[in-house]
Amino acid sequence: MDQTAPLIAAPSASVADLAEALMACPSVTPATGSVFDCLEGQLAPLGFEVTRFLAGEAPDGPVENLFAIRRGPAGARHFAYAGHLDVVPPGEGWTSAPFLPERRGPEGQEMLYGRGAVDMKGSIAAMVAAAGRVPQDAGTISFIITGDEEGPARFGTLALIDLMRERGDIPDLCLVGEPTSVNRLGDMMKVGRRGSVNIWLEVEGQQGHVAYPHLADNPITRLVAMLAELDAIVLDEGTDWFQASNLEITDVSCGNPATNVIPAKVAARISIRFNDLHTGESLSERVAQIAQRHGGTARPVISGEAFLTQPGAFSTMLADAIRAETGVEPELSTSGGTSDARFLKDLSPVIEFGLCNATMHKRDEAVAVADLDALARIFERVTLAALAG
Amino acid sequence: MDQTAPLIAAPSASVADLAEALMACPSVTPATGSVFDCLEGQLAPLGFEVTRFLAGEAPDGPVENLFAIRRGPAGARHFAYAGHLDVVPPGEGWTSAPFLPERRGPEGQEMLYGRGAVDMKGSIAAMVAAAGRVPQDAGTISFIITGDEEGPARFGTLALIDLMRERGDIPDLCLVGEPTSVNRLGDMMKVGRRGSVNIWLEVEGQQGHVAYPHLADNPITRLVAMLAELDAIVLDEGTDWFQASNLEITDVSCGNPATNVIPAKVAARISIRFNDLHTGESLSERVAQIAQRHGGTARPVISGEAFLTQPGAFSTMLADAIRAETGVEPELSTSGGTSDARFLKDLSPVIEFGLCNATMHKRDEAVAVADLDALARIFERVTLAALAG
Repeated sequence: MDQTAPLIAAPSASVADLAEALMACPSVTPATGSVFDCLEGQLAPLGFEVTRFLAGEAPDGPVENLFAIRRGPAGARHFAYAGHLDVVPPGEGWTSAPFLPERRGPEGQEMLYGRGAVDMKGSIAAMVAAAGRVPQDAGTISFIITGDEEGPARFGTLALIDLMRERGDIPDLCLVGEPTSVNRLGDMMKVGRRGSVNIWLEVEGQQGHVAYPHLADNPITRLVAMLAELDAIVLDEGTDWFQASNLEITDVSCGNPATNVIPAKVAARISIRFNDLHTGESLSERVAQIAQRHGGTARPVISGEAFLTQPGAFSTMLADAIRAETGVEPELSTSGGTSDARFLKDLSPVIEFGLCNATMHKRDEAVAVADLDALARIFERVTLAALAG
Repeated sequence: MDQTAPLIAAPSASVADLAEALMACPSVTPATGSVFDCLEGQLAPLGFEVTRFLAGEAPDGPVENLFAIRRGPAGARHFAYAGHLDVVPPGEGWTSAPFLPERRGPEGQEMLYGRGAVDMKGSIAAMVAAAGRVPQDAGTISFIITGDEEGPARFGTLALIDLMRERGDIPDLCLVGEPTSVNRLGDMMKVGRRGSVNIWLEVEGQQGHVAYPHLADNPITRLVAMLAELDAIVLDEGTDWFQASNLEITDVSCGNPATNVIPAKVAARISIRFNDLHTGESLSERVAQIAQRHGGTARPVISGEAFLTQPGAFSTMLADAIRAETGVEPELSTSGGTSDARFLKDLSPVIEFGLCNATMHKRDEAVAVADLDALARIFERVTLAALAG
């Protein structure tokens, strides 16, 4: 029997059973194969029509993607669950094997350990369980699942969006299951994300002997002045929904071994996380102008634009569901890193909500079994509310 | 016949012959063996008592050194020639083989090509020729010759100075044969040198994710502020005999490949060339204070202190000799890099003078044969004047 692709049909299985089955399939980015077989095996019995495809080429591909849809009545509303089956490398020092999920702890406080427990196979299991409990005639439900969210993400969710557009399967609302909760399940949802741009800076000078600086042109002097100017910029003070934009210098490199030589070239890299007062392009242009004034060049790579799903009907539905199941009032936040929500926001309003993120990307990643059950119920509630419109 | 150790006795040989014999012995730093055999073979017939010894251990040694002395009458003055037989690596692209010296060019304008032609085997050959022409009863003449001037110089001239002090052979004046002339033989002598200190700077911070800068402490931010402050320092405006001291940033290095990570540590290196208003220690202390204020550390390595042989009797003797042989009025300078004069100045007043430096350390290093002859005559004149007192 192929243990990596068990046919567990919700709702007969528990959410933890569904999560365990997914976690037992090693799927470090870029994920392909068995973990997708497993999810397909969970969704097909629930009436989902499953489409899987590989996208991209080396070095950032190929990547496996899965789109599953269960159509409601004609003209019904469409609610989408989005997420990823790939996980970050397990690293060292685990108490139990990272890809052999294990439940430990006293009755009623059991924890499920294994890579992907919270980020985000546990969340996908809760989506499967929720979908299994929502009647088909309530509306259309889809799963937008990639095998490359933790990696370059060039051929993952973007390719799924292309497919959905081609097919005309555009959801009304989309819920991304990233682990947004901080201390307690339900204490935070993300209604937007800051944008992110990395900019590679370079300054070329004229190599020479340290004793004859007038015959040389030290590029480090100009880089230091450039970086000091960049570092002094106050991009903004934050907005109602966003913290202040921030610029960090993440690398400087010259690599000149000779103590008596003024080097010919030096490089640096900055990372800007920005709110919706900026665009990746406006910031890139501003940095390029400063770089040029100091005789350097700037090469930007925009990872994502800032976006905000204006708090309103969708966030209220989700907050209601969270409150009903947990008694917790969720904070609406735009903090933290980027996620595939940065792509999905072009398809429909998108909110991120999921498990507690304390152990994500760490050794002994774990989720409370009770949280899995509660999350499935939250997902069920919000799905029903969203499909009701 | 061993071509690397010919017994050419000055004054029967031309200066170019003597130079060619030395240049035919490959002697990239650290030099040992045949090139010293060759020089010993030139000095012994002139009545010099030659002492050779190896000093130091790997990685900066062993280094060969030679001290030769021909004593004049009891109580006679002592004039020393100092220099080095090691050369920098030849590099690529030579017209003729770098260690097979070759004379090319029209009659009367012949050039002698080969590594060491001007820096400084040609100069040592001129010293040998000069010594051969100075009568023994004019005074004591010595040669202070190392095989490690172009390298770390830890076991070269310093070890020779120790030997001379042990033996009580302290010269009254010392002439270093470095190629100090710029456009024409005789246009510049060096009456001092700036000091040199290299300082390694390091800043440790707290690694973290770029999206959560409040949980990290970016060491690059602090390094940039530190370097900007260091770069803004005006050390001085120069003095009567020295150009302004200068600080250059010669390296920055972090090597953080991850665009989303604030690194834990960053390093830089500066080089300060300073005049006699400063000491290596005072500058190191000043930089350390600035480094500490920015949360960093500074590790200085002082290569040499600034020194000045106050222009006066010695420089006038040399200028007179230069003017008499070339018609050129030498500029008294303290510019440029360091040389072993930084050690010898502790023994006696020291001035550097030698061939044109246009081709030193370059491919097709070459000296005009006429310059070799003129330099030998200048050395002869200044030696006679110095011994006369």
